[in-house]
Amino acid sequence: MPSPSGQALSAQNSAAEQSRTPDTRVVIGMIGLGTVGSGVFKIFRDHPDIFFQKIAVRDASKIRNIDDVDTELLSQDPFAVVRDPETQVVVELMGGAELARELVTEALNHGKHVVTANKELIAKFGPELFDLARKNNVRLLFEGAVAGGIPIIMPLKLSLGANRIQRVAGILNGTTNYILTKMTQEGWTFERALSEAQAKGFAEADPTNDVEGFDVAYKISVLALIAFKQVVDPLSIFREGITRITAEDIQHARELGYVIKLIGLAQMEDDGRLDIRVHPMLVPNEHPLSNTQNEFNAIFVKGDAVGDVMFYGRGAGEMPTASAVAADILAIATGLLKGNEPIPSMIIDPATPANLLPMSETTSKYYLRLNAQDRPKVVGHLGNACGDAGVSLEALMQKGINPDGTASIVLLTKSVTEQQMNQALESIRGQASTAEIGCLLRVL
Amino acid sequence: MPSPSGQALSAQNSAAEQSRTPDTRVVIGMIGLGTVGSGVFKIFRDHPDIFFQKIAVRDASKIRNIDDVDTELLSQDPFAVVRDPETQVVVELMGGAELARELVTEALNHGKHVVTANKELIAKFGPELFDLARKNNVRLLFEGAVAGGIPIIMPLKLSLGANRIQRVAGILNGTTNYILTKMTQEGWTFERALSEAQAKGFAEADPTNDVEGFDVAYKISVLALIAFKQVVDPLSIFREGITRITAEDIQHARELGYVIKLIGLAQMEDDGRLDIRVHPMLVPNEHPLSNTQNEFNAIFVKGDAVGDVMFYGRGAGEMPTASAVAADILAIATGLLKGNEPIPSMIIDPATPANLLPMSETTSKYYLRLNAQDRPKVVGHLGNACGDAGVSLEALMQKGINPDGTASIVLLTKSVTEQQMNQALESIRGQASTAEIGCLLRVL
Repeated sequence: MPSPSGQALSAQNSAAEQSRTPDTRVVIGMIGLGTVGSGVFKIFRDHPDIFFQKIAVRDASKIRNIDDVDTELLSQDPFAVVRDPETQVVVELMGGAELARELVTEALNHGKHVVTANKELIAKFGPELFDLARKNNVRLLFEGAVAGGIPIIMPLKLSLGANRIQRVAGILNGTTNYILTKMTQEGWTFERALSEAQAKGFAEADPTNDVEGFDVAYKISVLALIAFKQVVDPLSIFREGITRITAEDIQHARELGYVIKLIGLAQMEDDGRLDIRVHPMLVPNEHPLSNTQNEFNAIFVKGDAVGDVMFYGRGAGEMPTASAVAADILAIATGLLKGNEPIPSMIIDPATPANLLPMSETTSKYYLRLNAQDRPKVVGHLGNACGDAGVSLEALMQKGINPDGTASIVLLTKSVTEQQMNQALESIRGQASTAEIGCLLRVL
Repeated sequence: MPSPSGQALSAQNSAAEQSRTPDTRVVIGMIGLGTVGSGVFKIFRDHPDIFFQKIAVRDASKIRNIDDVDTELLSQDPFAVVRDPETQVVVELMGGAELARELVTEALNHGKHVVTANKELIAKFGPELFDLARKNNVRLLFEGAVAGGIPIIMPLKLSLGANRIQRVAGILNGTTNYILTKMTQEGWTFERALSEAQAKGFAEADPTNDVEGFDVAYKISVLALIAFKQVVDPLSIFREGITRITAEDIQHARELGYVIKLIGLAQMEDDGRLDIRVHPMLVPNEHPLSNTQNEFNAIFVKGDAVGDVMFYGRGAGEMPTASAVAADILAIATGLLKGNEPIPSMIIDPATPANLLPMSETTSKYYLRLNAQDRPKVVGHLGNACGDAGVSLEALMQKGINPDGTASIVLLTKSVTEQQMNQALESIRGQASTAEIGCLLRVL
């Protein structure tokens, strides 16, 4: 329940909007002063119109990266920050879903606009929070939740608003893109690239969230919500990480004219089912996503009118993500400060639960690397196994002899269903000549 | 002067905004039913909320590309269309600057929102029209004026609004990018690539506007207006076209690790002077712009917080540009239709005349191809000519002997001023061994 002071403020805000009486400054309550929070503070600390009322931190005595943050500003009670009667905009930068949900709910119910960069929050609880924002006639903006500084949420919602979106495909995780770039450019193993990323602070000590694709699953779920107005539980998304990819696979892909990237993909089938998944893909060299290196992110969007568009930039980091959060704050502030310049119409429409296309029915071209006995007829057997499953081959290449005497073989199929490919794979696995299935990857 | 009916409508609109009474549909008057106009009509012809009142065309009897446009809709009097009392949004898609300026002025003074895709209009008369829109409390949106379907105006204004923009560099003309792509990929001459582009309808019979960079000058002038709030007369922008580039230059650039692209560049110097120019540039292969092929456009933006971002897509064509125009129409329509969802705050701030950095003070690395007598000491003479002007060389390569017996030589300099480079060039031109200066290009 909103507190009396919250209701009063909400009514006051709403009245201010009606009568177009401009405020003289915008009062911010921020939750979290980590990497992104520090960046937001730096952007606005000398801004004439933006005023930080309170910043909730876990430990107010901790020494911070910002030399001029007044300790008077800090609070260890985030609920006091979101309920503060003076505060007009709550900026949630704490991360995590459960407590953030409570705090954002409280803020919205107290009539405060909310800006967040929390992908997990939006992926898990976006629809209920958008409803709450609509009910309270306040804005809930989240440009920083996906792909850091790259403008994607507002462009997708507004600039491409006249399009039926057909596909969103993104390189949405800087850690894995850095690892794959180093494996590609330097020939490093996954393990070496990962420890380099950890040494540089691009990867966490436990890299699971990044390298197993969980982070991308949250982000593609948020993008599907905007692009297709469909709610997808991020945990229900088919997900494969990049740990099984070898320097060999990257080399073979390169010879075939591809680079390997971890892709978050969401595309609408003609029958209204949503094909959404996260896994590494072979991206053709001529595809605009292919040139996205190191920690950069890029999001490719296909719309029925606009055709192919792409958005590229830094997907994480202090100032890039702060740039997105600050844009949302400014959008709200402009509306509050200038009576005749309203806040962008970023209200998110009610979404329906997605009808997911089962993974077995998805179609792709496949890349398969395997080791087989180096003896006659092996190629014929492989071709037969594929053919029996209805899988046509675009290429089949022997790539040399392994130390154990087996031959390394690479297949590239034509476009088939996952079910057909799995059937072919079962049959190949059952052949006496098959020593080991190496790596199965899909082609974008 | 606004007519009485215009003032009445303006007052009515304003009252509607105040009391938040939603309209039931949005009434459009469109000027122009050419390529982009047809696309906009197709997008909205079955739309429940968007109603076309009148469409002004030059010749109402002309048979059109759309089978179901009711001839009752057509009018040969554009002034009647912009003054129509029912019309809420005027969509100007006629092109050209003078008459469009009169019509848009009339529409704004009649209290109508305006959407345009007219780069020349915005480049030449943007600031006065934005003033007029502010005075009349209506919106003037122009996402389609630059780079067709690529969302760039709204992202630059809103999503990157917390950044001090440092640089905008764009591949902004699809015709020249198609020509340069074909010269690069197929080894064609400029002339052959141009006639192919003309045959495909990508280039006009008189290609001057595209190949001499006028089109890009308009667009970079509009981008500078948004990014730097500075007014630049498009005709004052330093401009070089692509006609002097040979297949040889493209080949040499490739060997050095570059592709040649026609770039519209605007960057802010530390002293507040604006460096704005249009000319072909050698773009490093690892630069995100380098992978922009054929008729695609891309705009690279550097901001102090976000770092490097890029926007990529189709810069022209019926449906891509219509996608941008339709987004602007929907942004306005959403505000008019839903009392509680206002129009995005795309009011353009007042701009000041730019203080231009003189071309002689710009700094670049330079690529120079020249023909010289194939005799000893020539290289030494070239090196001396450069050294005397303070131009250090990064590379100097003899690229073979021409049919006339001269040697083709390519220089790549370090970063120097245009003045220094011109001085070196004068000195080289004066050397007895210099047969011909081939092509001078700047490096991004």
